[in-house]
Amino acid sequence: MTTPTHVVSAGADLFADAVASQAVDVTRVDWRPPMPGAESDLATVAADPRRRDANERALAAMLGVTARLVDVAPASEVLGLERGQFLHAGPPIAWERASGPLRGALMGGAALEGLVDDPEDAVALFEAGTGVELEPCHHRRTVGPMAGVVTPSMWMFVLEDPRTGARTHCSLNEGLGKVLRYGAYSPEVLTRLAWMRDVLGPLLQTAVRTVRDGAGPVDVTGILTQMLQMGDEAHNRNRAGTLMLLRDLSPAMVTSGADPADVADSLRFVGGNDHFFLNLAMPACKLALDAARGVDGSTMVVAMARNGTDFGIQVAGTGDEWFTGPAQVAEGLYLGDYGPDDANPDIGDSAITETAGIGGFAMATAPAIVRLVGGSVPDALATTRLMHEITLGENPRWTIPVLEFQGVPSGIDVTRVCRTGILPQINTGMAGRVAGVGQVGAGLVTPPAEIVPMALAALAERTRRRVS
Amino acid sequence: MTTPTHVVSAGADLFADAVASQAVDVTRVDWRPPMPGAESDLATVAADPRRRDANERALAAMLGVTARLVDVAPASEVLGLERGQFLHAGPPIAWERASGPLRGALMGGAALEGLVDDPEDAVALFEAGTGVELEPCHHRRTVGPMAGVVTPSMWMFVLEDPRTGARTHCSLNEGLGKVLRYGAYSPEVLTRLAWMRDVLGPLLQTAVRTVRDGAGPVDVTGILTQMLQMGDEAHNRNRAGTLMLLRDLSPAMVTSGADPADVADSLRFVGGNDHFFLNLAMPACKLALDAARGVDGSTMVVAMARNGTDFGIQVAGTGDEWFTGPAQVAEGLYLGDYGPDDANPDIGDSAITETAGIGGFAMATAPAIVRLVGGSVPDALATTRLMHEITLGENPRWTIPVLEFQGVPSGIDVTRVCRTGILPQINTGMAGRVAGVGQVGAGLVTPPAEIVPMALAALAERTRRRVS
Repeated sequence: MTTPTHVVSAGADLFADAVASQAVDVTRVDWRPPMPGAESDLATVAADPRRRDANERALAAMLGVTARLVDVAPASEVLGLERGQFLHAGPPIAWERASGPLRGALMGGAALEGLVDDPEDAVALFEAGTGVELEPCHHRRTVGPMAGVVTPSMWMFVLEDPRTGARTHCSLNEGLGKVLRYGAYSPEVLTRLAWMRDVLGPLLQTAVRTVRDGAGPVDVTGILTQMLQMGDEAHNRNRAGTLMLLRDLSPAMVTSGADPADVADSLRFVGGNDHFFLNLAMPACKLALDAARGVDGSTMVVAMARNGTDFGIQVAGTGDEWFTGPAQVAEGLYLGDYGPDDANPDIGDSAITETAGIGGFAMATAPAIVRLVGGSVPDALATTRLMHEITLGENPRWTIPVLEFQGVPSGIDVTRVCRTGILPQINTGMAGRVAGVGQVGAGLVTPPAEIVPMALAALAERTRRRVS
Repeated sequence: MTTPTHVVSAGADLFADAVASQAVDVTRVDWRPPMPGAESDLATVAADPRRRDANERALAAMLGVTARLVDVAPASEVLGLERGQFLHAGPPIAWERASGPLRGALMGGAALEGLVDDPEDAVALFEAGTGVELEPCHHRRTVGPMAGVVTPSMWMFVLEDPRTGARTHCSLNEGLGKVLRYGAYSPEVLTRLAWMRDVLGPLLQTAVRTVRDGAGPVDVTGILTQMLQMGDEAHNRNRAGTLMLLRDLSPAMVTSGADPADVADSLRFVGGNDHFFLNLAMPACKLALDAARGVDGSTMVVAMARNGTDFGIQVAGTGDEWFTGPAQVAEGLYLGDYGPDDANPDIGDSAITETAGIGGFAMATAPAIVRLVGGSVPDALATTRLMHEITLGENPRWTIPVLEFQGVPSGIDVTRVCRTGILPQINTGMAGRVAGVGQVGAGLVTPPAEIVPMALAALAERTRRRVS
């Protein structure tokens, strides 16, 4: 009789597979080496005595925020956006490096504002750069899905934290397919945007103000709580959220005094667009995360955003600095005949949802999402479980019934990402690579791995400066 | 060295526990003896050569039905219900044996119809029995939640299968708490019912007819498909369904020409009542199951219904015969200070949802339901899995994402119930035992075990008569 051999294999699957194939019992321990080059910075940041407390404060600040819908108003009013100024998703970028969908959305936006008659004529305008300015949404307390282009005449949702009065903003969602945020700028796109400007926006303003001054503003954070019990992860599924918003606003829309035909059209438009609530989920997440900005010593990510060329993150302990790298193309499912060659790299501020613990981080609560973004139901459950490995805590308000009401994984920790090599999972729409095309699919994507060690290095540098 | 002992234990947990406590390896095989007294009838029915084909036809008939909302109209019109006629939930029953909540609902209904001014005066009317008649909803192609009382002036949803033109009906849902269907009849209850009669019903009629004649009738079966992906099991959770109904009807409500204040009140009433859609889910299930009625030789259950005193089932192969036994008190969670002593035995036609494979049978898709009816999340998942043991098949249209899109367990088979002893799981509201109280809780309940072998005996008797 031979002594039984039992191998404990930490991380290295190749080794474990080899011994298992020789009929040796193997206990696999999930372990990966830290991200390359991160060891020294990890040691520095881990030893920083401020870290634990700073992260607790950052997480608590984020979890303490509630978002209410207090107004709908044009960007010119609430953001002070002036003629020729354009907001866009992601970290800063100039026209020269802008991707197709961002260019397409800027061209359409220029036509909407009357800077040009034909969107194609806007190319010369942006190339010359005279009388036009680009600025990230994030720099104006705003988030924008996909291209995220905001122009002065666009109506914005205004969200407020009742405890602090802090506010964030987002434009109104246009629907799917041929829409500006996916880079389309055909006449149907501009006609829809004009109707949103002239009919939908004013009607929503009246309704939102009536509700705010009556029963109290729509509780966006509360609707998100309910959505997570109704199969929405609030990034690529916002069906229940959209319906709850309609429930809360429709009575005031009816008594607004507006033409009943316009009210009916607006109800049909919102009710026919399962993504309408995304533009409330996103600024609710930004409002929460902005509360954690500037917490010195904290390694918590407060923004992940993409402009179609670069993927950028911001961290609580490094102020408003962006750490950027090349945006990836998502893996997923394509609409119609589109394929990977048609897809633009990752774009949009919508990864703010994952940054706040929902979207891809809450996929376990929305298993039906796999029909849209690909993957399997067990993958969806596993993704949420995996994200707990790289987050600071759980959100007691946003829970997942099927995981026995566990809170969503919240507060991405730069040190945990670098230590485990596990990257945040984002589920996202895919824009066509060519300006004007629109949406081509939806799928799963991560940040480029190298930007997280870049953020860690900046944190380590601050720690070293402080100590020295 | 002793020879290792390994015990395979079939069913008997007591034995398995005993040997396991002696450190013997036990493989537990889930097996239970057939229900007492059912062995001979099981053998007879199992040997019936028509059974397999009949059950296939019954199941296919049920699964082939789709339900559309084609009208809303008073019961006097669509059911021919006349002054003094009252429909009620469950199998037939007279006033003498009626439970508190059914009596309370009848008293309120009599006042609503102007038979008496004070609901209390209706007691004498029903005791005398002159000028009043009681009849089960099921006998008029109708289902009613809880007491299920329908009077001539109540507005009814009218559902139709477009393939056959078959129709079923259900009243409009009043909300929760102090409501007629839970046996309450206070002035607030009657005032609400009068408003539903005078304002809500006519408005819904206009909207439903406009939608029907325009884009086409509301697809109730399709909404149920979506609900099951949105955390509703369509018996005790109908939140997403209610919101989708509002989405589909609200534009036509707005352009109906009705007073905007009435439209807004109606939107608020429906939007504030997460159970509103239950009264569409139920007749959709009945429409499906009625298609399987009268399939000779089929052992499939086509109705489970309770009147607060008796629990009755009907089976495809036994015509319209009821098999009844005493209704049980549900186990669950109580509202406020109420407890088990306050609860009436099981009541209502709403178990038609479980009969069609949703409600308690689809609990896996609605884990949040455990916060309402009790139990744990794993219990909810296990319940759906267990119900596959006693059903003939799965519904390809109604799938559960978290179970990897498996269809809901559909077509309760009397022979499987008798062979396994596993009873159908129903999740239900609980009415107060005393007339006038209203809802006291929600929980889980089963039929009285003995009625299933009664149905089996009737099936066996038919088989024997046919063979002899």
